Parts: sequence; structure tokens; C-alpha cells
Amino acid sequence: MTQNAITVLQEGSVTSAKGFEAGVTYAGLKVQRDGVVDLGILLSRRPSAVAGMFTSSNIRSPSVTLSQRRLAVGKTLGVVANSGCANTCVGEQGYKDAEESTALAARHLGLTPDEIVMCSTGLIGAELPMALIRAGIPKITMSPTGGHDFANAIRTTDKFGKEIAVALDIGGARVTLGGCAKGAGMIHPQMATMLAFLTTDANVEPSFLKDALKEAVDATFNMVSVDGDMSTNDTVLLFANGAAGGPAIRAGTSDAAKFQQALHHVSRHLSHEIVRDGEGATKVMEVTVAGARTLADARVAARSISSSLLVKAAVHGNDPNWGRIMMAVGKSQAYLEEDKIGVYLNDVCLMEHGLPIPFFREAVVASMRSNPTVRFRVELNIGSASATAWGCDISQEYVHFNSAYVT
Amino acid sequence: MTQNAITVLQEGSVTSAKGFEAGVTYAGLKVQRDGVVDLGILLSRRPSAVAGMFTSSNIRSPSVTLSQRRLAVGKTLGVVANSGCANTCVGEQGYKDAEESTALAARHLGLTPDEIVMCSTGLIGAELPMALIRAGIPKITMSPTGGHDFANAIRTTDKFGKEIAVALDIGGARVTLGGCAKGAGMIHPQMATMLAFLTTDANVEPSFLKDALKEAVDATFNMVSVDGDMSTNDTVLLFANGAAGGPAIRAGTSDAAKFQQALHHVSRHLSHEIVRDGEGATKVMEVTVAGARTLADARVAARSISSSLLVKAAVHGNDPNWGRIMMAVGKSQAYLEEDKIGVYLNDVCLMEHGLPIPFFREAVVASMRSNPTVRFRVELNIGSASATAWGCDISQEYVHFNSAYVT
Repeated sequence: MTQNAITVLQEGSVTSAKGFEAGVTYAGLKVQRDGVVDLGILLSRRPSAVAGMFTSSNIRSPSVTLSQRRLAVGKTLGVVANSGCANTCVGEQGYKDAEESTALAARHLGLTPDEIVMCSTGLIGAELPMALIRAGIPKITMSPTGGHDFANAIRTTDKFGKEIAVALDIGGARVTLGGCAKGAGMIHPQMATMLAFLTTDANVEPSFLKDALKEAVDATFNMVSVDGDMSTNDTVLLFANGAAGGPAIRAGTSDAAKFQQALHHVSRHLSHEIVRDGEGATKVMEVTVAGARTLADARVAARSISSSLLVKAAVHGNDPNWGRIMMAVGKSQAYLEEDKIGVYLNDVCLMEHGLPIPFFREAVVASMRSNPTVRFRVELNIGSASATAWGCDISQEYVHFNSAYVT
Repeated sequence: MTQNAITVLQEGSVTSAKGFEAGVTYAGLKVQRDGVVDLGILLSRRPSAVAGMFTSSNIRSPSVTLSQRRLAVGKTLGVVANSGCANTCVGEQGYKDAEESTALAARHLGLTPDEIVMCSTGLIGAELPMALIRAGIPKITMSPTGGHDFANAIRTTDKFGKEIAVALDIGGARVTLGGCAKGAGMIHPQMATMLAFLTTDANVEPSFLKDALKEAVDATFNMVSVDGDMSTNDTVLLFANGAAGGPAIRAGTSDAAKFQQALHHVSRHLSHEIVRDGEGATKVMEVTVAGARTLADARVAARSISSSLLVKAAVHGNDPNWGRIMMAVGKSQAYLEEDKIGVYLNDVCLMEHGLPIPFFREAVVASMRSNPTVRFRVELNIGSASATAWGCDISQEYVHFNSAYVT
């Protein structure tokens, strides 16, 4: 199948798929500005299969713990999400507050508490201001066009909302898959990611849904890095409510491959938006390591480059410093043979057989300066596995911003 | 035994121990400035046991490869070291150049080539300018007081030379242990370190010497981080020539414990100097994780904190952001129980039982501002293992400097 089978919808959002609704309010968890919202609900109006992936940090928000437990029960229909407060490092009160918040959302929607999960993002170590949440939830009006607002309600330091939806045909049914996500700092997921919500009206067999999400997350969200720091609240949820009709999509079928491709497309778009909006970022870095012996090697090498502080600084300065690329590949512990390595920057070859080759430096610098994305390609030439990682440069603004986050 | 048994020598250097000599020259590998030197030789005038540890990167300098091979042969008496050129990513020519450089040094000293090893540091991807090295080595005059010059000859972006020597009594003999090291970027060693040279006139049994070096390096050099990036050239060499006399120091004896303590002292001092001189650094961070279940857990957690970009930025801004400390402990994957964790900053308690406690924020900020070293202590309260890591803050100057290293 070809990429053409997927249509990117204009103004697509997390509620583009049939049977999904969202609503938001300003509850007072963030500083009030024009149009700011900080509390939202996303819901499937029909029973839905749901898959989730969560932070692998040993310090995690009770909002994460509650969501993990309820997903295991299998009744989830929606999520209440807040920004401004991570509900993390707050002891047992955090779990009670997550329980109460989901109960409030459930009552407002005419559901039972175990049908709602919770995601929180923001400052660590502050309890949820429950009085504000109690007052806020009843004000939320659900709407099939509420997706854009929901994408805004989960923003913290994000400069813009991140959302997308695509459509494709599966088994004769027109299926929609959409999503939204938030960054923009403490971004270096492992086995999980920042907050991202994905919805589809496709009819997807639950165990395949779980596997499809893992495959997409491993190749996209888990391959981005803004600052190498993994959050305590990382969560991705994928809802599939079957509202588009058609037979269930099962593993190993051509429908499954189509769905996987669409899921990859949506996840990659949102991941890319996260690095583009990385704190202080002025450039996106796309790093492909090809010809690796294993996929794990390709991934670890690509991530080592995209998260290296020295590489990030070189990208910021439009400096084609391939020595730092070699350093980062070497320290990754991926298997390599030095005399086989080729390095390309925006398609210009800088190294062959592990050796620098003469290149027109000013042309490469100009190409880095004029492109918002800098592409590195490292050819290991010892196998056939390939992986791409995304990162961003580090700027003086990043340091300034994160030196004064609380103060 | 007490710390008092170790005397720190005034003006101590890598040639303070008996029987060691060093000499340097300016060969033209670095930009000429007043007093700059870039090529040096360090030598034991007597047969010497030598232990070494090297970078674990899969991209490594041929200077490292040659040194590893020769150390295995066991005849090493000295090292020729150059700054300005890493002799890395230069293919087979790099090994030939390392062979020729050591042969030139050996001829100059009246030795055989296999008695000399080589360390290189500087820009990656440039061949050693052998014409300059051929002209430079014969100009080197060896001297028992050449240690300070040698510490300068290995500097790259280092703002100052890093050296120390201590004296102690072992088995009735007055023994000296000295050393020097260089930083200042691409510093995040694993199983190895930046360049460091340690010398002692103690009589040390070779297998114990190797174990003692590993123990010291794991607890000191391997616990520092400037920017999370591991160099292709990291090397630590420890020479023990027995010139002070006395019986051989063997594992498991009280003499061995004394020697280990002195080695730890010297290594810790040099490590600390490296982070103090970290590129763009304005503050040193000392992070102790105590009460861990295992030493490995304590080390990985301490290093996760000291190398977290968000923690480094908070330290730069004098921001007692304990939420980022908890984030970094959590992502380290060290075993923990959240409700047992205590966090201290410059001895002020910020968290108890995993919860923030009220503290006088302005007092903590003032204490961070007025101290060149910021000390974090994390009590896991689930075991008895403890480890300390050292790092530095990240400044706008770091980004500026590393955005324009080559350009």
C-alpha cells in the first residue's frame, strides 16, 4: 500500500473521529491569559477499546497510577486532563484527588467513576487545587468539535497546540484517526511519552490495538528528545470505538497494516510537533541511523546523537561538526565498524569509510542555516536495520528559561 | 586510620613522587599564546608497574588502542601526550602516527618504542601533524620538576591546570602520590575518564594496582559529568615505580587500605577540579544519594541527578527545584519507595517521606547563590549504600561556546 491511501484532514483534531467529544474550561490552575484553558474531558460516546502506555519512571503521578489500574479493568470511556499541576510527589492525597476528579467528571457525564481515567501535567509537588476542579468540571460542555480546545487545555510551556487527524479506508469503511499531544520540556520518554491522546472510530480488536500502539510509540514518541529528562507523568492513550463500522481489525491482516501505517503517521506528526516546540528550540534535528546490525542498535545510536548536548549545541551554531556525531555514535555502544561509517548532513557526505572527506564547508553551513530541520544520516554499513530519532537544538534561551521556571 | 595520615603537598604535581620526570614543548598543535605548550612526555626513570583505564566508546583514538596494547605487554615506562589533536577518526594513519610518535619519544629518551604509550586530546578528525611532532619531541628536556608544565601541555579548553600530590607513610616508607588531569568538555566517562595521569613512588603489587585504580576511578572520575558526552580518548594511567622503597603493597592489607585512601583523595581532587572547570560552569554540584539498596543504585541515581539538564539549569538559576531532583531520581531506574525519600539542599531539608515540607525559600536561594558548590543529598532510606556524583551547572555561555567551537 502507498502513503496516498492516507488523507490528512484539514483542521483535524482528537475529536475528528466519529463518536468522540471533548470539552474544556478555565479552572484557575494556570495563570489567566486571553483564551487560556486548563481542564478538559475527552470522551467516546460509545464503548471503546483503549490502549495506554505510561512513563517508566519510578516516581510517577498518582494520576498515572489510577489510569493504569482502570485501563486494566477495561471499562474506560474517557479521560479528564488538567494542566498546571502534575499531581506528583503529593503522597496519598494525590490518588484521592485523582479518584475525586474522575468521579466528578463521571457524574457530570452520567457515567461511573471507573469509566474515566486521569492525566495531569504541570508543576511537580503541588496538590491539585480540588476546590477549583470541583467548580470547574460542571462548567465543561462536551462537543464533537471540542478537539482543538482539548489540545489547548493540556498545554503547559507549549507555544502551540499539537493535533492532527487522518482518514483512510479499511474493509470498506471510511475510518478516521486523530490525536493531540503536549510537550515541551522534560521530554525524553522511555517506554512511554509525554501526554498524547489518540482516537479512532475504527473497529480494532483490543489486543492488536495494544500491540499497534506499542509499535507506533517505540518508533515515534519514544524517539524524540528535547532535554534528555523523562517526565513523571508521561502517558499515551489510544481509543478505538468502532463507530465507523466494518469488521474488527486483527493482527496480521492487510487492514492491520493499513491501520498501523495511519497510526504511525499520526504519532510521528505529533512527535515532530513536540520537538519543533521544544523549550528554546530554534531548529529540529532528524537523525537516521541506517545499516545497523539490529533495530535496537539503530535506535540507541540515533537517540544518542539526537540527545547529545554537544551535537545540539553544534546544530544551534550551524556547525557541521561531524566529530561530535562520531563521538555520540561511539558512546551509544551500538555495534559498529569504524572504517565502514558514512555520515551525511542534509544529504551532503561528510565522511566515508570512517574518514572525513573534503566538503565545501560554507555550502553545508548555509544549508544548515536556511533549513528549519537539520538532517543527519549515519550509514553503519554492517546490516539492514534503520531508525530515525528527532531532537532539537539547545539555545541560550533554553538555559535562561529553565533557570527561572519557578523563581 | 584517619584522613590526617595523608599530607597534601604544596605545589604538588605529577612529578612529585621520586623517580618521575616530565618535559614539554610547544610544537604548534594549538594556537600560540604566551606560555602555551602542547606536547609533553611523562616518564618513570625506574621500572614501574602501570595500570590503565580507557574510554568504553566504540569510536576510540588509535592513541588509546596503542596504549591499551602496550600496557598489556607490561613494559611501559612513560607516555607521550599531545593536546590540540585527538588523533581520532583518522583511519589507519592514526595508529601509524601513534607508533611513530612513541618511537620518536623512545629514541629521544634512549628507550625502546614499546616502553612508551600515547595520549591525545583535541579536535576529532584531524591527522596528527607529524612534521611538527618530529620537530618538537627532540626539543623536550626532561626534569624532576616538569610536572606543572606537563599539566599545562595536556590542556585544551581547560582554563587552568589540574594537579595535586599527597604524601603518606606506608610500611615505614614515606610515599608520594601525585597526578594531573584535563577536562573540560565531552566529559561523562563510563568505565574510564578524560585524560588523567597518576604517579607514585610506592611499591605496589601490579594486580592490586589495577584493582585499586578501578575502585578509585569508579568512585571519582566516573562520577563526574560536565555535559553527558563521553570522549573518544578518555584515559587514566597510574604508574607505581617503588622508588620510595618498602615492601610491596598487597591487596587486603592495612597498607593497601592506606594506599587506596590516598589514591581516592588524589582522584577525587582531580575530578572535582574537572567539574569546577567545566565549559561555561559557574557552580559545582555535589550530589549524594544515601540509603540505597545497592551501590549501583546509589551511583546511577546520583549520576542521573548530576547530569540532568533541568537540574543543571535550576542550579544555574539558584532555584531549589526539588521536583526536578525527584524526576531525575525516578528516571534513573534505581529501586526506591517514594514515601521514604528525603531531599536536602545545602543541609536544608526540602522533602521528607516523599513530600515537600515548608521551607524558607529565600534562605535556600541565598545559600545557593553564595556557595560555589551546591550540595544535594537524597536519602532513599531503604538500604545502606551511598554514592556521590559531581557535576556543574549549565550556562548560556556553555551553549554559546559550544555553538562556535569550530566556526
